[in-house]
Amino acid sequence: MELDTGLIYAYASEFLKEDLGRGDFTTQAVVRGGAKARGVFLAKEDLILCGLEFAEAVFAVLDGSIQLESRAYDGEALKAGSSFARLEGPAAVLLAGERTALNLIQRMSGIANLTRTYVDTIAGTGAQIVDTRKTTPGLRLIEKYAVTVGGGRNHRFGLDDGILIKDNHIALAGGIRRAVELARNHASHMMRIEVEVTTPAGAEEAVRAGADIVMLDNMKAPDVAESVRLIKELSARTIVEASGGISLDNVLEIANAGVDIISVGAITHSAAAVDISMKIAPI
Amino acid sequence: MELDTGLIYAYASEFLKEDLGRGDFTTQAVVRGGAKARGVFLAKEDLILCGLEFAEAVFAVLDGSIQLESRAYDGEALKAGSSFARLEGPAAVLLAGERTALNLIQRMSGIANLTRTYVDTIAGTGAQIVDTRKTTPGLRLIEKYAVTVGGGRNHRFGLDDGILIKDNHIALAGGIRRAVELARNHASHMMRIEVEVTTPAGAEEAVRAGADIVMLDNMKAPDVAESVRLIKELSARTIVEASGGISLDNVLEIANAGVDIISVGAITHSAAAVDISMKIAPI
Amino acid sequence: MELDTGLIYAYASEFLKEDLGRGDFTTQAVVRGGAKARGVFLAKEDLILCGLEFAEAVFAVLDGSIQLESRAYDGEALKAGSSFARLEGPAAVLLAGERTALNLIQRMSGIANLTRTYVDTIAGTGAQIVDTRKTTPGLRLIEKYAVTVGGGRNHRFGLDDGILIKDNHIALAGGIRRAVELARNHASHMMRIEVEVTTPAGAEEAVRAGADIVMLDNMKAPDVAESVRLIKELSARTIVEASGGISLDNVLEIANAGVDIISVGAITHSAAAVDISMKIAPI
Amino acid sequence: MELDTGLIYAYASEFLKEDLGRGDFTTQAVVRGGAKARGVFLAKEDLILCGLEFAEAVFAVLDGSIQLESRAYDGEALKAGSSFARLEGPAAVLLAGERTALNLIQRMSGIANLTRTYVDTIAGTGAQIVDTRKTTPGLRLIEKYAVTVGGGRNHRFGLDDGILIKDNHIALAGGIRRAVELARNHASHMMRIEVEVTTPAGAEEAVRAGADIVMLDNMKAPDVAESVRLIKELSARTIVEASGGISLDNVLEIANAGVDIISVGAITHSAAAVDISMKIAPI
Amino acid sequence: MELDTGLIYAYASEFLKEDLGRGDFTTQAVVRGGAKARGVFLAKEDLILCGLEFAEAVFAVLDGSIQLESRAYDGEALKAGSSFARLEGPAAVLLAGERTALNLIQRMSGIANLTRTYVDTIAGTGAQIVDTRKTTPGLRLIEKYAVTVGGGRNHRFGLDDGILIKDNHIALAGGIRRAVELARNHASHMMRIEVEVTTPAGAEEAVRAGADIVMLDNMKAPDVAESVRLIKELSARTIVEASGGISLDNVLEIANAGVDIISVGAITHSAAAVDISMKIAPI
Amino acid sequence: MELDTGLIYAYASEFLKEDLGRGDFTTQAVVRGGAKARGVFLAKEDLILCGLEFAEAVFAVLDGSIQLESRAYDGEALKAGSSFARLEGPAAVLLAGERTALNLIQRMSGIANLTRTYVDTIAGTGAQIVDTRKTTPGLRLIEKYAVTVGGGRNHRFGLDDGILIKDNHIALAGGIRRAVELARNHASHMMRIEVEVTTPAGAEEAVRAGADIVMLDNMKAPDVAESVRLIKELSARTIVEASGGISLDNVLEIANAGVDIISVGAITHSAAAVDISMKIAPI
Repeated sequence: MELDTGLIYAYASEFLKEDLGRGDFTTQAVVRGGAKARGVFLAKEDLILCGLEFAEAVFAVLDGSIQLESRAYDGEALKAGSSFARLEGPAAVLLAGERTALNLIQRMSGIANLTRTYVDTIAGTGAQIVDTRKTTPGLRLIEKYAVTVGGGRNHRFGLDDGILIKDNHIALAGGIRRAVELARNHASHMMRIEVEVTTPAGAEEAVRAGADIVMLDNMKAPDVAESVRLIKELSARTIVEASGGISLDNVLEIANAGVDIISVGAITHSAAAVDISMKIAPI
Repeated sequence: MELDTGLIYAYASEFLKEDLGRGDFTTQAVVRGGAKARGVFLAKEDLILCGLEFAEAVFAVLDGSIQLESRAYDGEALKAGSSFARLEGPAAVLLAGERTALNLIQRMSGIANLTRTYVDTIAGTGAQIVDTRKTTPGLRLIEKYAVTVGGGRNHRFGLDDGILIKDNHIALAGGIRRAVELARNHASHMMRIEVEVTTPAGAEEAVRAGADIVMLDNMKAPDVAESVRLIKELSARTIVEASGGISLDNVLEIANAGVDIISVGAITHSAAAVDISMKIAPI
Repeated sequence: MELDTGLIYAYASEFLKEDLGRGDFTTQAVVRGGAKARGVFLAKEDLILCGLEFAEAVFAVLDGSIQLESRAYDGEALKAGSSFARLEGPAAVLLAGERTALNLIQRMSGIANLTRTYVDTIAGTGAQIVDTRKTTPGLRLIEKYAVTVGGGRNHRFGLDDGILIKDNHIALAGGIRRAVELARNHASHMMRIEVEVTTPAGAEEAVRAGADIVMLDNMKAPDVAESVRLIKELSARTIVEASGGISLDNVLEIANAGVDIISVGAITHSAAAVDISMKIAPI
Repeated sequence: MELDTGLIYAYASEFLKEDLGRGDFTTQAVVRGGAKARGVFLAKEDLILCGLEFAEAVFAVLDGSIQLESRAYDGEALKAGSSFARLEGPAAVLLAGERTALNLIQRMSGIANLTRTYVDTIAGTGAQIVDTRKTTPGLRLIEKYAVTVGGGRNHRFGLDDGILIKDNHIALAGGIRRAVELARNHASHMMRIEVEVTTPAGAEEAVRAGADIVMLDNMKAPDVAESVRLIKELSARTIVEASGGISLDNVLEIANAGVDIISVGAITHSAAAVDISMKIAPI
Repeated sequence: MELDTGLIYAYASEFLKEDLGRGDFTTQAVVRGGAKARGVFLAKEDLILCGLEFAEAVFAVLDGSIQLESRAYDGEALKAGSSFARLEGPAAVLLAGERTALNLIQRMSGIANLTRTYVDTIAGTGAQIVDTRKTTPGLRLIEKYAVTVGGGRNHRFGLDDGILIKDNHIALAGGIRRAVELARNHASHMMRIEVEVTTPAGAEEAVRAGADIVMLDNMKAPDVAESVRLIKELSARTIVEASGGISLDNVLEIANAGVDIISVGAITHSAAAVDISMKIAPI
Repeated sequence: MELDTGLIYAYASEFLKEDLGRGDFTTQAVVRGGAKARGVFLAKEDLILCGLEFAEAVFAVLDGSIQLESRAYDGEALKAGSSFARLEGPAAVLLAGERTALNLIQRMSGIANLTRTYVDTIAGTGAQIVDTRKTTPGLRLIEKYAVTVGGGRNHRFGLDDGILIKDNHIALAGGIRRAVELARNHASHMMRIEVEVTTPAGAEEAVRAGADIVMLDNMKAPDVAESVRLIKELSARTIVEASGGISLDNVLEIANAGVDIISVGAITHSAAAVDISMKIAPI
C-alpha cells in the first residue's frame, strides 16, 4: 500500500498545528532568528524503520527550503545506534518539528516492527498476516501503511470496502444462507463475501451458503484445523482466515493449522512506540 | 482536565467518517431497515474506564435519538466481566458505530489504566505523575484527558503554553544564564520557566540562573537525590521534575529521591489497548 | 445503497451556501419578516422520484422548525401533475431554499428515471444495469444513490474499492497473466479481480489468468455472445460484464448476448434534469 | 468570466479525493513504481472545448512536476478526432487522474457546446443568451464559466448579487409597485431591479413601477412581442428578458420578438457530456 | 441586511475556539462542576445596541440548554447603565463565553453607534450613508450588518457584486468611454455601472459615457456641488455618490452639496469599541 | 512574538476570498488580460509599520510569481509620505489584492502605532505595556503580534495558557485562599497563578494566599501605590499588574505607582486604522 504525498503533507501540517498551537514560545524567546542547526535521526534500539516521508514532510511544511537526507528506506531493519536521516536548517525549525516527527516515526516504526515479528514467526507456513480495523482513530491509513511496511497485508480499510458478515448480521438476517444471499444480491459484484463463524460446523455452513472467504473467529488450533479441512474439501477456492485472540504465542500454531490469512488486531492497537531520537546541534 | 462536549462530538464524527467511508455496505445489504438491537459494553479485563462520553457521542452522531445508559463513570476501576453501559436503537446504527466506539475507549482506558498504575506505585511519596508531549498525533487532547482520568496531571499541551529550555536552547543561547534571562524578558509573565539539566551541577546552575522549575533529564536516582538537595538548599520554592527513562521499575526510586514531579512518556506512547467488547443482540 | 443522514445535511448546507452567498437580498428587501407561505412540489412530467430527503434537508438547514410532509417515496413512479411533498413556514425560508432543492431533486430524479428506463428495457434477461465512475465531480455518492433508486446497481465508488485491470495496466504489467498475478499478490483478499478485454480471445486469456470478472469493452453483440460462451465454458463462476458504447438502442441486444452485468455511463453523465416545480403561495 | 487559478486547483483536489479515496489500489498492485507513460486527449465528436485548465490542475495536484502541453484553447471548436492536449509522467499519475480530468472536461465542454448552439441559432438578432441558477449543485462557478466559454453571458450567480422580484415576492409585498419601491429603498444602489411578469399587462405595470429589467416568464412569442412593444414605448432604457420554456425549437422566434436577453436553463441543467477520451501509452 | 442564523452560530463557534483553545483551565481548576450563575449585560455608556444574536449564539454553542433573555433589540438606543440581556446557567459556561460575547457586541455596537451619528448628522438632507470595503478582514458581513443596524446602507460586499470603475481601470482600459463600454458588454445586465471621478469635468465625462452612478472621490464641497449640477443636468436618473475624506466635520456640507449617497470608511475601519460589561454572580 | 509563515498565507487566502467572492468582475470586464502594473505602498501619516508579510502574502496567494520589494521593516517608524514597499505584476492581480492588503496593514499598523504611544509614554518607569483578550474576534494572533511590534508584550492568548483568578472565580470557589489552593492543585505546574483584586486589602490577601501575580483592577493611582507597597513588603518576587480603565491620560501615573505590568485593552479594541495607500500605475 502507498500513501499519497499530498496526504502525507496534510497530516504533517495538521499534527504540527496540534503541537505548535500559537507558536514555539520558548524558541522564539531564547534562540536568535538566524541560528542554524543540524539534526540527526538515530535508532535507539533494533527496529524496522517506517515513516521517513513523514519526517521529511514535517520539516518541509515548516520551511519549504529544508531537505531531509535519508540513509535508509521504509521497511529497512536498522540496528540500535544507526542514524537513518539528517537535515540542516534554521534551528527554530528543527526545534519546532522535532517532537511531531518523532511521535510519528516512533509509532509507525513500532507497528512495522511488531508486524515484522509476526510475519517472521510464521515464515514458511504459507499464511499471511493482515491487519484489522482496530486502529488508532484518525490514523487508519497511516497505520495500515505501516503494516504493509512490516510485511503484512491489509484487511478492510472501512465498512465500505468489503463485505464481512458477522454473527449479528447473521442473527438479524435469519441465518447464514439468507445473509449470504442478501449480500450477493445487493453488494457490489466486485467484492468477495466473507462470513465469520465460530465453529467448524459454522464454517461448513458458510461454504455451502456460498461464502468466498470464511473467517474462523477465536477458535483454538484444533478447531481451526478441522474447519480448514471441512472448507477446503467442499471448495478448494474458498479462502480461510483466522481472527481473534491471536498473539505471538499462538500465531504459528494457527498458521500451521492451514489457514490462508491471519488477522491480528494487536499489531495496530497495542504496538509500543520504538525508541528513536533526533540529535540537534548548532552549526 | 475536561473535554468540551462540542469537541467530543467533532472527534466522534471525524472518526466515524474514517471507518464508514461511503457507508456500511454489509449492513445495508444484509440487515432490513427497521431492525432493532441492544448493545452492552463489557470490560473483558480489570481496567480503569475512560471515554464514556465518546461512546455516547459516536452513536448520537449516527442517530440523534439514541441514548447511552451509563452504569459507571470515567476513572472508575472496573472488574473483568462487568458491564458499564448499554444502549438500544436501530441495529444498523449499533453495527456502524461499534468499532469506532471501541477503538476510542479501549485506547483511552489503556492510558488511564497505565497512568493509574504509575500513580499507585508512588502513592505516599508526595511526587506527582505528569504526561509529556509524546502523544499520538491528532489525539493529544484526548490522551491528556485520559491521563488525568488515571490520576496523572498534565505537562505542556504544546510548544505554546509553557517555557521549557532544553539543551539545544541553552547551546544556541550561549549558556543557561543567558537563556533564562532571554526567556524572562520575552516570554509571558504568566509562565514559569523550566530548565532541563543532566547533572547536579547543571541543576545548581539553573537555580542560580533563576529557573522556576528544574527538569532532571535521564538521571539515575542518586544523582536525582543530589540534585534535589542542591536545588532545595538554594531555593525551597523551586520545583523539581524528573524526566526520561522512567519505567514502572524505577519510578518509586525516583519519587523517593525527593522530586515533586515525574514525567512519563510511556503512559501515552506505549499504553496497550485494554480489552473491551460490545455485545449486540437483536430485539 | 443508502445515504447517511448527516451527509445529506452536509451536502444541503454546502449547496445552499453556493446559492445564498451573502443572503437572499431580494427577499430581505421586499418580503416582511413574519410572512408565512406554503410550498407544494409538483412533478411536471412522468418520472421516477429521487431526492426527497434532500428537499427536506435543504429547508431544515435553513430553519430547524420546518417539516416537509411527503406523499411519495424515492423510487416511486409519479405521473405528470402529481404533487409529492408540501411544507409550510416563513416565506423567506421557502424562497431561499426553492432553487437548491429543485436543482437537487430534478437531477437525481433525472438519473433515477433514465436508469429505470434501461432496467425496464432489459427486464427478464437476467442481466443487471450498473453505473460507472463517469459521475458529476463532487456528486458521486448522490448520483450512485440515484442509480440504485432507479433499479440499477453500483460498480466501483472510486479507485480504492475494487480491482479493475484495464488495457494500460496490462501493457504496463507485461501481459494479462502477470497483471492478474500481481493483483492477486498485492490487493486485498476481500476483492474480486476484474479484467477489461476487447476481444473474445482476450476474454479467454483473462479467464485462464484467473480473473473473477471479465469486462467486455466496446464489443458488438456477436463478439459479446462469443466471449460469454468462451468464458462460461472455462469457468461457470466467472462474471461477465459488458461496458462501453451502451445505449437504449443496443442494451437489450447486449443483454440477450448473455452477460451478467451491463455498465452504462450515460445514466449519470448524460441524464437530463426532469421537470419539477415548487409552487409557493402566501398564507 | 474567469476562474481563479487557486479555485481551479482546489476543485481539482477535491474531485480527485472523491475518485481516489484511499488510493488507486489496482495501479499500486499492478504497475511498478517507476513506469512512465504518455497521455493524449482526443475529441471523439465535434465540440467546443472547455476545461483545459482543470485537466492541467488534476495532474499537477497529483504530481507537481507534470506539465500538460495544450494544443487548443477553451472556446475553440474542435473536430472529431483531433487531439488537444498531451502530457508525460509517471504511469501511476496518469492512471489516477484520467477519470477525474475527463469527467470535468466532458461536462464543461458539453455545456459550452450546447450554449454555442443556442448562441449560433440566434446570431444576428441582437439578443443574448444568458444562463440561470439551474446549475449542478456544487458546480455553479464552473458551469457559469463554461457558459461564457460557449458565448453566453451570466445571469445572477446567487441570491445575493442581483434583485429579481418574482411572482411570490409580488404577492407577499402586495403588488408590483410596492415591491419595486421596497427594493429601491433597501437594496444596494449598485444593482438594477428586475421584475418577472407573465403577461403584457404585467410588463407594462412593471415598467411604470420603475423596473430596470422586465423578465417575460414563459410567454409565447406573440405576447413577448407585444410586451417588448409596450415596454420600449414607455422606456427605451428598460431591458427585456425572456425566460422559461426556451428550447432550440423556439429560441429564434423569441429572439426575433425583440428581447434583449434570453435565459436558458437547459444549457446547464440538461447538457449531455460530450465524448472525449484520454489515450495512455507506456513509454 | 440580515445575517443567516447558521452563519451567526458558525462565527460564534469559531471565535469561541480562538479564545478557549484547549479549555478554560482557570475555571476547570477553581470552580466546581455544578455551580450555577446569572449574567447580566450592561451598557456602560450611551450606545446603539448591535449583536444580541451573537451574544445568544456564543452561549448556546457552549451549552445548548442556555437561553438568553433579551430586553432590547438591535438598533435600540440604550442609556448608560441600562441592562439589555440576562441569562442563567452553569457558571463555567458563563465564564467561558463572557469575553467572546463582549468582544463581539462591543465592536458591533461601536460600528452601529458611529454609523448612527453620521446618519443623524445629515438627517433631512436626503443623502444616505453607506459603508465601504474598508472592513476588518474576516468580519465583513458582520460589520456590514452593524452598519445597517446603525441606519446606514451597504455598498459592495466584495469585488463580485458590483461594477465600480476606478482611476486604474480607466487608465488600463484607455479612457472612461472605453471602460464603460467594456463593462456594459461584459458585466451582468443586472448591475449598474459606477465610475469614480475626481473633477467635475470627469463627472460630466462619466455621465456622457453612460455611467449609472458617478462617484466623486475626495472632492471638496464646492466641486461636489458643481459636479452634482453637471450630472443631474445631463441625466436626472444618474446617482451621485461622494467618497473619500468624509468625516463628521464635513459630512453635512457634502450632503448639502446634493449628493445621493455618501460612503464613509471610518464607520468600519475606525470605530472604537463601546463599553459594555457582563456582570456574573453565583446563584 | 512571531507569526508562522504558513499561518500568514492561510489568513491572506481567507481574507482574499471574503473580498473577491466569485471574482473581480470589474477588472475582468474592463482590463485586458495581459496588462501589467506597478504598485507602491505609501504611509499617508506618521506611523509604526506593521503587517508587511501580510501584504506580501496577499499578492503571492493570487499569483505565485509576484514579489514584494520591501524598503522597511515591521516596527519601523515611518514618516508621512514615505513609501515602504513596491511590486510589479499583472494589473488584475494588483487590483484584486489592493483592498485586502490595505485593510490588514492599516489595522495592524494602527495597533502597533497606539501601542508604541503607550510604551513611549511610560518610558523609563520600568513598567511594561501588555495587551488583553479584548481583541477583534478572529484576529487575536495577528493583533497580539502587532502589539509586540509596537513594543508591548502579550498577556494570555486564550483561556488555556494562563491561570487568572477573577472576582467570579473567587466568589464561586469561596474565597481567595481556597481559589489559589485549587489552582495550585489542578493547574499545570508550568503556570504562574494570577489573582485579580480591587482593593489594597485584597492585594495583601492574594499575596498571603500564594498568588504569583496580583492584578489590580480599576484602581486609582493612590490605591495602586498602596497595593504595590503592601505586596512587595510581603513578597518581593510577586509581580504586580494594573488593569482596567487605563488610558493615555493616566498610564504614566499608574506606571509611577510602581507596578511591573500595565494591561491596556484599548490598544487592540479601539485602535483606529492608520492611513496607508497603494498607488497603482500601468506599465
